[in-house]
Amino acid sequence: MKKFLDDNFLLFTGTSEKLYHGTAEKLPIIDYHCHVPPKEIAEDKRASNISELWLGGDHYKWRCMRSCGVEEEFITGGASDYEKFRAFATIMPYLAGNPMYHWSHLELKRYFGYDGVLNADTCDEVWNLTAEKLANDSTLSVRGIIGRSNVKCLCTTDDPTDDLRYHEIIARDKAFTTKVLPAFRPDKIINCERQGYRSYITKLSESSGVKITNLTSLLDACRSRLDFFDAHGCVTADHGIDTRVLYKKAPNIKTVDDIFRRCMATERPLPSLEEQEIFKTYMHRFFASEYSRRNWVWQIHFGVLRNVNEKQFVSLGPDTGYDVIGAETGIEALAKLLSSIERDFSLPRTILYSINPSDNAAVGALIGAFQKGDGTGVPLMYQGSAWWFNDNIDGMRNQLISLANLGALGYFPGMLTDSRSFLSYTRHEYFRRILCNLIGEWAENGMLPDDTVYLSKLVSDICINNADNLFGFNIVKE
Amino acid sequence: MKKFLDDNFLLFTGTSEKLYHGTAEKLPIIDYHCHVPPKEIAEDKRASNISELWLGGDHYKWRCMRSCGVEEEFITGGASDYEKFRAFATIMPYLAGNPMYHWSHLELKRYFGYDGVLNADTCDEVWNLTAEKLANDSTLSVRGIIGRSNVKCLCTTDDPTDDLRYHEIIARDKAFTTKVLPAFRPDKIINCERQGYRSYITKLSESSGVKITNLTSLLDACRSRLDFFDAHGCVTADHGIDTRVLYKKAPNIKTVDDIFRRCMATERPLPSLEEQEIFKTYMHRFFASEYSRRNWVWQIHFGVLRNVNEKQFVSLGPDTGYDVIGAETGIEALAKLLSSIERDFSLPRTILYSINPSDNAAVGALIGAFQKGDGTGVPLMYQGSAWWFNDNIDGMRNQLISLANLGALGYFPGMLTDSRSFLSYTRHEYFRRILCNLIGEWAENGMLPDDTVYLSKLVSDICINNADNLFGFNIVKE
Amino acid sequence: MKKFLDDNFLLFTGTSEKLYHGTAEKLPIIDYHCHVPPKEIAEDKRASNISELWLGGDHYKWRCMRSCGVEEEFITGGASDYEKFRAFATIMPYLAGNPMYHWSHLELKRYFGYDGVLNADTCDEVWNLTAEKLANDSTLSVRGIIGRSNVKCLCTTDDPTDDLRYHEIIARDKAFTTKVLPAFRPDKIINCERQGYRSYITKLSESSGVKITNLTSLLDACRSRLDFFDAHGCVTADHGIDTRVLYKKAPNIKTVDDIFRRCMATERPLPSLEEQEIFKTYMHRFFASEYSRRNWVWQIHFGVLRNVNEKQFVSLGPDTGYDVIGAETGIEALAKLLSSIERDFSLPRTILYSINPSDNAAVGALIGAFQKGDGTGVPLMYQGSAWWFNDNIDGMRNQLISLANLGALGYFPGMLTDSRSFLSYTRHEYFRRILCNLIGEWAENGMLPDDTVYLSKLVSDICINNADNLFGFNIVKE
Repeated sequence: MKKFLDDNFLLFTGTSEKLYHGTAEKLPIIDYHCHVPPKEIAEDKRASNISELWLGGDHYKWRCMRSCGVEEEFITGGASDYEKFRAFATIMPYLAGNPMYHWSHLELKRYFGYDGVLNADTCDEVWNLTAEKLANDSTLSVRGIIGRSNVKCLCTTDDPTDDLRYHEIIARDKAFTTKVLPAFRPDKIINCERQGYRSYITKLSESSGVKITNLTSLLDACRSRLDFFDAHGCVTADHGIDTRVLYKKAPNIKTVDDIFRRCMATERPLPSLEEQEIFKTYMHRFFASEYSRRNWVWQIHFGVLRNVNEKQFVSLGPDTGYDVIGAETGIEALAKLLSSIERDFSLPRTILYSINPSDNAAVGALIGAFQKGDGTGVPLMYQGSAWWFNDNIDGMRNQLISLANLGALGYFPGMLTDSRSFLSYTRHEYFRRILCNLIGEWAENGMLPDDTVYLSKLVSDICINNADNLFGFNIVKE
Repeated sequence: MKKFLDDNFLLFTGTSEKLYHGTAEKLPIIDYHCHVPPKEIAEDKRASNISELWLGGDHYKWRCMRSCGVEEEFITGGASDYEKFRAFATIMPYLAGNPMYHWSHLELKRYFGYDGVLNADTCDEVWNLTAEKLANDSTLSVRGIIGRSNVKCLCTTDDPTDDLRYHEIIARDKAFTTKVLPAFRPDKIINCERQGYRSYITKLSESSGVKITNLTSLLDACRSRLDFFDAHGCVTADHGIDTRVLYKKAPNIKTVDDIFRRCMATERPLPSLEEQEIFKTYMHRFFASEYSRRNWVWQIHFGVLRNVNEKQFVSLGPDTGYDVIGAETGIEALAKLLSSIERDFSLPRTILYSINPSDNAAVGALIGAFQKGDGTGVPLMYQGSAWWFNDNIDGMRNQLISLANLGALGYFPGMLTDSRSFLSYTRHEYFRRILCNLIGEWAENGMLPDDTVYLSKLVSDICINNADNLFGFNIVKE
Repeated sequence: MKKFLDDNFLLFTGTSEKLYHGTAEKLPIIDYHCHVPPKEIAEDKRASNISELWLGGDHYKWRCMRSCGVEEEFITGGASDYEKFRAFATIMPYLAGNPMYHWSHLELKRYFGYDGVLNADTCDEVWNLTAEKLANDSTLSVRGIIGRSNVKCLCTTDDPTDDLRYHEIIARDKAFTTKVLPAFRPDKIINCERQGYRSYITKLSESSGVKITNLTSLLDACRSRLDFFDAHGCVTADHGIDTRVLYKKAPNIKTVDDIFRRCMATERPLPSLEEQEIFKTYMHRFFASEYSRRNWVWQIHFGVLRNVNEKQFVSLGPDTGYDVIGAETGIEALAKLLSSIERDFSLPRTILYSINPSDNAAVGALIGAFQKGDGTGVPLMYQGSAWWFNDNIDGMRNQLISLANLGALGYFPGMLTDSRSFLSYTRHEYFRRILCNLIGEWAENGMLPDDTVYLSKLVSDICINNADNLFGFNIVKE
């Protein structure tokens, strides 16, 4: 009987324990994809209570609360912070087996030193303890948390029109040594059918200083923003791809230009599905060629159906817990996109994340078909870490096993939080425990040589070295 | 080395054993979805031999026999009951790892006290033993079996035109305390393209007393039957949805009325796929709104391709073992249906069952996007227990883990037999062992707190309390 | 702690060990589907170094190398054999968890007696050891390897136009007792849209002696080649089916004839997708009826997207490591094809292999819907062994469990190498260890009776007897 969440949490062999405590635990963190606001880092924000930290913007927790029948009043509604926290504490026992159960307890333990179990009975105890620590513990400001979590580098997710002013402030502050880099997310440029597209393009005109009247000037504006991001240390871009509207190559550039002009001329009628397909395919190809030229890493997230609950979308807007796994597969469309880019421009280094765990093997096979050595020793194609709904023990273990079977686990760039919360760095701990457990198991089961130096290198590479090499941060070498 | 099927069958940790024997084993059963004939309960039928019980109508067993090369003569053909049983006993050794292997032995053990292994050598021993018990053991009539299985409530599956006379007989008999409730299955009203649709609607006219000439009168007839079922204690309805013919909202009600009138005017030509889509979407929405109003639970079974072996369909008809997993996914169509209902009427409490285990994560995400607290503490949306082809150790364990990861396992309403046989209550035992094993494992592995009261409540909730609350049976509270 | 790759590699219970060492290990091998060249058997070829054996044509290894960033020069390019081997040895440590890691070490151990770990440090040691053995060990010629691997029968994969001269040479040599039989792979006859179709049909004309001018003469030529293969001991055919271009029954035979004539008249324009669908459906049905008549076994491989990397396809051609898992499912189309054949001709014995592991359950359900006993005791339908990307510990275990849950594991015909390399017979060892481990686990966990005779028969049947009966080789009975 292991104690709940003890030092050897998720470590089930001696070798796994040694790999974690001897190697993984001590390694710094590179969080190469997340959604934390740079403003809060620049301002070194400090939360006033645990609800603000946990329940202010985390739709994972909102979804858990709704799944337990909690009323919206206590989720995104007008209830007080305390009432919301009480509602959350009360449902914890029903979340047995949910990663939220582990994440919450890990965060309470690592950041607040709380060793108990959160539920309705302990709600006040935890509320008071966390309030006291947040008020008095200097390591619980945003920068304090980043520092004590040993985060050496993090990449935020930023709109191309962003002025990156907070990144500049952070970069200028030499006392804060964590690299905080922007990442380029041009979805709003690509999704020409969305409401507000015209006014967004106007904003892009302003931020780039390029008057956008046609496709050529659109691309000029994009290049200008890419250069701006590049100058601010950006090394990666991220596309959310709806593979249902992919892949269709334009018969000629005039077609693309026409579609773009029509989208700019009027919000209605929307471009047809075929027109969207042509325009989006064109833009993905354009951006990929630009990333390739700049040696950026392209991250592709696909398979999500967004905002499926229309009533709640009208009431709460996007990113509030109403996205689902699309299930329809996009492998063939992606294969065509990647092939056309490789043929015409050569692919940038690329990471593919599918929201559907049933795609694991297909993604593993797909990346294999576009691998290419270029003499640097850094492979071209990657399967991303278990994403979003899969970011749990089983999802991460399955992704590791699938990738190992179909590709080269030894080059996997490992974990990222994808989170909006600064307390989420414990997810790297979670991942590292799962990784060390798997590799320790393999060694103890005679499936890998019991060679301490080898196993430890494998773990270090996946925990940090591979990401460091892939993105070129030079954190480890420094 | 554990003995085959011993007291701790499927229980691999001490905590798992304690949870099962201390809690789960003693709990009564609510079987909220099954296909047993109410007539046999009303008449307290008694089988004359084991073939009648096992091989009379169970297409799971027929499929197993065909998979072992048994000729149809010994399955649905003219061979004697004894010959059929001998054929079944003979193939048992080839079913290693099949749930049928466990179910059959569990049923022999629990209902007939047989401790051996069934095969060609023991065939006669088992034939004679079971015949003797069936003739002499008073607890082996249908009601005897229900009683000794500790079943407190069961929901049959009934056609809207059914007069529910057997439910009335059972309800009047105060000596029999198990609640036997009808469930409403309107597939024949919805599937307007099926052969015999017109004569079925005539039957619906007769049973409802509403002359059906157009859409309005069809809906009136449906409402009348819903009221009739409601008056007989019905609390749930069940739709088998072919998501390939979903989702298309009608431009206006006249379109739906036209489609229905044409279906009623002539069997040929069939309504086009688009017309079916419009009509079915309309009817699903209509029924859902009616369930919502009556506070019924809506069960949706989807993903099955029916009767794919045309030759055998012609020879044996439906439900004879020729349905398969459709593999094409219906998540997006279902999302649209659920969204439109929630927007226009508000969803009833809903349980989604996919036949495809690769849909587990997508279903888990989908229910999360429609959860909504209403102040009762009973959530709105559920993923159903591992269904049909997935109703085995791996399928059930995977469903539990997936649901735990993506939703709130603590609110899962648990197992149902979905069976046509009265001996199938051992499948609740099977499920409970798998459940207790998983939760026991989590506790012993340090993934859940080792808190006996908490773990035991979790198990009780999933075994019976959640279903009791969801359907409002008030079995446990009584 | 188990030693890496020791005698009990992959065997984790005592019963598993006993089943493997007591039964499985000693059984001969039937390799009923592979891609080794019969010419090399006829000539008893001997490789001059390990690169020739391992890296000459094995796109599995090429893919691994590309996944580790190795440049094409060292894969399919101009580097020397030694340089290529060094590149491969160097990446081994990154392949932790990949079946290639195990296969390579198993092959070094079983055929070369090498007990160490392959990596950059041991590269020369292994290069020299293997070179020495290849030069001097008489059991390392092609026939030597087949003999020491205890292979009693193997089926190559052959084009219908092949003259089977090497099969004749091998058959005439009474000193070599392994049966080497051709298998019929008519993909090039069916894929009417491929470049070079007309010249291929010309070749078919020549080999069959039938002047092909229309559909009727095409079928005559096919029948002639089927008879020729049959006369050379062929008992099985293999179709690679692209289920995206299936299923469409021709309105009449003239339509099919027209399509074929157009394909023969000119390479351009390609037949439309609908025309392809009609022609291919017709040809699959035709061949199936011919297999049925000859009592051949039909193997269907489906789900692969071929040559997705256009740039590399132009540079290296097919079968070079650029195929992927299609993810789109073909279950419904296959169901229609099987149903139409069963209805019109009756199905031959059929094995279905999907490249997508997410199809496991759907394939298990599909075969169940076409099972039919014919009095021989040999079932009609089979799920093939975990194929290609799934040919690893997890893939094989999952396929076994899925098949056991949905069908009759006891009739599974087991493993085949599907390989182009003569060293791959260790994959049968790999499979047998995984199989024995699973069945041993079940017995020790109380999920199967602990009956040594029964368990041992189950293992023998799956390792060899079932394949022997299914294909009618009569190896075991001899």
